[in-house]
Order: sequence, then structure tokens, then C-alpha cells
Amino acid sequence: MKNSRVAGGFCLNTTIEHLHFNFGAFNSSVHITHKLPGIAEIASNFTGDFGSGFFKPLLICDRNTRYLAEKIMGDANVPLCIVEPGEAQKNWQNVEYILRCARDAGLGRDGTFIAVGGGLIGDLGAFAASIYMRGCSLALVSTTLLGMVDASVGGKTGFNLFGIKNLTGTFYPARHVYISTESLASLPAPEWKSGMAELIKTAILDGDAFLEELEHLCSCGSWLEHFETAILLRCISRAVQVKGGIVQEDPQETGTRRMLLNLGHTFGHALESAAGLGNISHGEAVAWGIARACELGIALDICPRQRAQRIQALLTAYGYTITAPHPLMGSTGSFMRALGSDKKERGGKLHFIVPDEKSARPVVLESDNNYVKNIITSETIT
Amino acid sequence: MKNSRVAGGFCLNTTIEHLHFNFGAFNSSVHITHKLPGIAEIASNFTGDFGSGFFKPLLICDRNTRYLAEKIMGDANVPLCIVEPGEAQKNWQNVEYILRCARDAGLGRDGTFIAVGGGLIGDLGAFAASIYMRGCSLALVSTTLLGMVDASVGGKTGFNLFGIKNLTGTFYPARHVYISTESLASLPAPEWKSGMAELIKTAILDGDAFLEELEHLCSCGSWLEHFETAILLRCISRAVQVKGGIVQEDPQETGTRRMLLNLGHTFGHALESAAGLGNISHGEAVAWGIARACELGIALDICPRQRAQRIQALLTAYGYTITAPHPLMGSTGSFMRALGSDKKERGGKLHFIVPDEKSARPVVLESDNNYVKNIITSETIT
Repeated sequence: MKNSRVAGGFCLNTTIEHLHFNFGAFNSSVHITHKLPGIAEIASNFTGDFGSGFFKPLLICDRNTRYLAEKIMGDANVPLCIVEPGEAQKNWQNVEYILRCARDAGLGRDGTFIAVGGGLIGDLGAFAASIYMRGCSLALVSTTLLGMVDASVGGKTGFNLFGIKNLTGTFYPARHVYISTESLASLPAPEWKSGMAELIKTAILDGDAFLEELEHLCSCGSWLEHFETAILLRCISRAVQVKGGIVQEDPQETGTRRMLLNLGHTFGHALESAAGLGNISHGEAVAWGIARACELGIALDICPRQRAQRIQALLTAYGYTITAPHPLMGSTGSFMRALGSDKKERGGKLHFIVPDEKSARPVVLESDNNYVKNIITSETIT
Repeated sequence: MKNSRVAGGFCLNTTIEHLHFNFGAFNSSVHITHKLPGIAEIASNFTGDFGSGFFKPLLICDRNTRYLAEKIMGDANVPLCIVEPGEAQKNWQNVEYILRCARDAGLGRDGTFIAVGGGLIGDLGAFAASIYMRGCSLALVSTTLLGMVDASVGGKTGFNLFGIKNLTGTFYPARHVYISTESLASLPAPEWKSGMAELIKTAILDGDAFLEELEHLCSCGSWLEHFETAILLRCISRAVQVKGGIVQEDPQETGTRRMLLNLGHTFGHALESAAGLGNISHGEAVAWGIARACELGIALDICPRQRAQRIQALLTAYGYTITAPHPLMGSTGSFMRALGSDKKERGGKLHFIVPDEKSARPVVLESDNNYVKNIITSETIT
């Protein structure tokens, strides 16, 4: 991506939005801005003045987002906790490290964790916040497309254990989420690709108009080189609205509403586990999972073939590998076992989300269902 | 304690109660019974039939409560997770061990953790339940007086980290709590003493009638030898009602209401930390803390001297050491540092709960307040 062009784009006077959600016991405000917030702005949003002694922050970042955390900090003296980047770091050891930083910084239950990064730093930092002294204040500064359109909104936190993705976690929505397009200027290409899959997923749930936006965004040419910032901002904002709206209706996924957001994830998480955590990006796994969900939708007569083809064409246009079997999935047996370990398993059955005419819906299948086996091993794409 | 006498007592046809609470997003039912529940009864309370495949339990206990867990299990085949007993075991390693047992048993998000034990097993098992796949179902079978009158009700979970008691935890009330006096028959004397401190604490919050009951219970002679089961059952039931009622008004301790339950705990936790976790029982530390809170109440002109003396006399009658400085507290400096690490510190100040005319109230003091220093070092008791 050409940074100068992007940076120029971000300076356009496009709308800045504040969105408010109520997730069960938690209120969550999403601030969509061009520029990163400063520490004083974050403090004032928590109704504490920075420097008053009543706002005690801990900045959490990884090596890649350290410069953004330091930008937020400015001249202030804020304790900084730096985690190594990468999916393999999403473990208890790093949760404990964050907790140790908070303890060493003398934070009490009234402290505020500010996690600056993508999905990984957000999930780890938010999990640590949710258990530190039984829950301290939390802000997320989302710096990746994936974080902005998905991970930062709705309160899912967690880390990987025993090789299972997010086996452990909590529901703990951030009080304030900052989505600042400034941080996208230097986002590496694989990170764009990882986030775009969640954007496509959300568009499928929302319907035709959103899908058209994404088709348009892609048709601008090579989308990574020439995307139009105004369209992207609209897409990010819409994705936050759609996701936040769904989560509001079912904050802790006790019903079937929030499950819709798992479109592509039952297959996708299993692919991530089977490939070995960190060997395939979450977005690429989800994109492949969406393609499988489309085929399951056709097989079960839930998704019109034309809509499935449209979705798969969009995934291909954005550069995703959607053929089955996936080159990294290993044996059918190990993949099916990974599928059986999924958190979405309830009562011994697997829950899938499959696209339908306008959005998507859940279906429940035995984990050794033949449709599923065929879909992950078939070399033919619909 | 003479088991035969106690066991006989428990067979009296005293009232069996079911209490229902609403703790924010959580409903919690407390079943006060003579006999331990069987696994089928627990299953049916979760509206799942045992054996139907829809109720997937994991029994969690320690070596001391294993026989109770096996009694609950009966002839059924339920995976059993056995943790070593003792405060030193309240660590992440045992949380991870419980999570591993759940994973190995193939539990999904619809699994049910059943923790059978006192405060330690309850806190550990409930914490593990709160993070397993972002929260699975939870039942607590409380087998100690401490668990029955305090720990099992209201949803505080946690474990010790960096030598700080319950530094990490969540709010996660059990869906069903079983308080079965059957399990008290073999409770060791130190465990009685640990629980009685919380019972006295709750009585102070509730007022004169409850205190009178405890004075009566004690006056039966050596209370451990000759307590009357009917009175004890009334006291346990009343303590659950008082605690549950307070927690309902402030489930996550965001206000000052739930803080009342910390009476004796700011001083008590600091004593536990200063003495080295596990070197003094929670109850003995809390009893000592209540005595300190009484003196703080007198110093601040909040607690009538007569009420403080009555409370301290009751603590002494139940055999607690309430003199200051406590033999295990170490130097004043290390104790004050432990006090400064307390979770109840907010905005750089310490929150204490002190008895007043009828109940208790919170007060906020600088952590180096002179009253506090005098109270923990003074050799004179009011």
C-alpha cells in the first residue's frame, strides 16, 4: 500500500462517528476517528482527569504497535506492557505478564487497561482486564482492520490453551473502543487480508447493499493498492453497527442470535487448529470456512446457488484460497477431531451458520455428518 | 465434635429451604438440605436428565471432599477432577488442571462444573467454569461452614497470584448452590472456626437479633461440642439470606453496598498476606480484622463503644485471637504494604468497613492513616 496516498485519504473530512451499545451489564462506546486518541482524551472519556491520580492507566501493546502506544502516551508517563506479537503468544504466560505489569504499576481495581493493537492484543489485554481484581476498566485502541470490524466490539476475550483456539476466555466488553484509521496507514498486507474476511462475513449477514459496497471496493482495481478511504470507512462503520446490533440482542451467546457471527468460524477454527495455531491467518481460515458454509447451505437447500456463487466470487476476488481440501488442513480425521473440539459444539452436535437468501441462519448437525465430510474433502467448488 | 450426636441432630425434621437470588445477569438458587444431592437431582435442576447426553458434568473436589463427590456420583460414571487441598493450591496451575480435566472429558460450552468442597474448591472451580469456553454451567456443593455462609453465595471466584490473595478472579454466581448439613458431620474443628468468623461478620451487618442467636449458640457450652443443629441451621439460612440480599443490590461491587461484606477483610487479607498465604486461616484473619474494624469504628466515633465490646467479646468467646499486634503479622511496614495492595484500594485510598450502631458502613482513609497504624500495633484492646 502507498502510505502517502492512504494518509492523504484519511485526512478527508469524512464522518466521525460515535456508536453506543448496551451489551447486557456493560455499556460500550465505539469512537470512530481519523486520529489516534491521546491519553488525556481516553482519561476524560472515563470521567477521570489524567494527572488527577484517579485515572491509573496501563498501556498494553506488542512490538508492532509500540509506536502507536507511545503516540497515545505522548509526553505523559504511563506504564507500558509490551508483549511479543503472533498467535503463539496468545497464551496464559502473556496474560500473567500483563497482570504482573499491572501489579508492578500499582494498579487497583479502579485501574484502566488500554490495549493497543489488533485482535490478539485486544483479546489478551481484555481477558487480563476481566480477571484483574475481578475486573478493572478497559479501553481498546483497535489498530487492525480485523480488530476494527470484529474483535474489538462485543466483548469476547480469550487465549489459546492445549492447542485449542480461545478455549478459555470471558465476555468483557470494553467501556471505550477507539477505531482510528490513522493506524491503518502502516498495516501490512496480510493484516488487511485477515480483516477483510470478517468484513465480508458481516456483509453477508447484513444483506445485499453491504455486499455491493465490498464488490465495489474490490472492483476499484487491486483493492490493496487503490481502495477508496471513504468507502472503507463506511464499511468499517457499518460492520461495527451490524456486529454491535447483533451482540446487543444476545450478549453472551446464550441464544442463537450472536451465533450468526460465527459464520465461517466453525470450519475456520477447525482449520486453524488442524493447521497448527498461527500457521494460517484467522481471516484466511474464516474465508475458507465461509466458502464451506456456502456449500453446506446449497447441500441443505438453505442457500440459493446464485448467492453462494456470488459470495465465493467475492472471496476469490479478495485473494482468498477457498478450494477444498485446504492445503494446510492435514488428514480428514484430524480435521474432523478439531471440528469436534469446537466451542460451538452443544449437546454433542455441531452448530454451523450457513448463508440463506438474505442473511444467514444456524443449523445443527451431527459432527460426523456426511455433508460436512464431503464439503471439506471435495475438490470441486460450486 | 461427636459425630453421632451431630449426625443425629441433622436428622431432625428442621426446615429445608430453597432461596432464589438475582445477581445482575445471573440467577442463583440456593438449596439448603440435610442430605447431599445426587447427580440425578443436580441434573434435573439444570433441566437436563442425567444419562440423556445433554447433561455433561465434571465433578471437582479435593482429597478431603473426594468421598462426598463420590457419594454425589453414586453408581454413575462422572469424570472426577481431584485437586490437592490447602490455600497454597489456589493457583493458576490448579485452574489449568481443572480446565484440562474438562477438555479431556470432552465437555463443551454446555458442560456443567460441579465443585464439591469449601471456599478453596468453590473459588477455583467457579473461576475455571467462568473462563472455560467463555463460561460453562456451574453448581457448587458447599461442604464447609465458611462455604455455606459466605463463599458459595454471590459469585466471587478467584485464585492467588504473586502472593496476593485473590488478585485474579471473576464474578460468576453458580446457577445452583447446595448447602447440605450432612457434610458438616465430619468437618474438622479449624474449619468450623474459619466459617464462624464469616457468620459473625454477617450477623454484625444484620443487627442485634442475629448477634443474639450467635451469643446463644456459643453459650450452649463449648460450641464445637454441643451446638444445637436447629440454631445452626437457622443461622446458616439467615446468613445466606443476608448475604444474597446485599449482593443482589450490588452484584459486582461497583457501589458501596456489597463492600459491607468486606467487614474485617481489609485488615484480614493484609494479615493473611503478611503472614504468608496459608499460614493463618481466612476465618481467624477475618475475626482479627473485625476486632480492628471495631477499634477503627470507636476511633472515628462511628461505632458505640458498647457495641464494639459486645462484638469483641463474641469473637473471644468463639476462641479467636484478637489482640494487636497479631503474632503472625510481621513488621508494621510489611503489613502496611500488604494493606496497600488490597483490592479494596480505590483512587489511592483504602476502604474499610466499620461497625456502626446497627450494622456497618464504609469509610475511606489514606493508606498511611495514623488511626490504622495505631490500631494494628496497639497492644491494648478496647
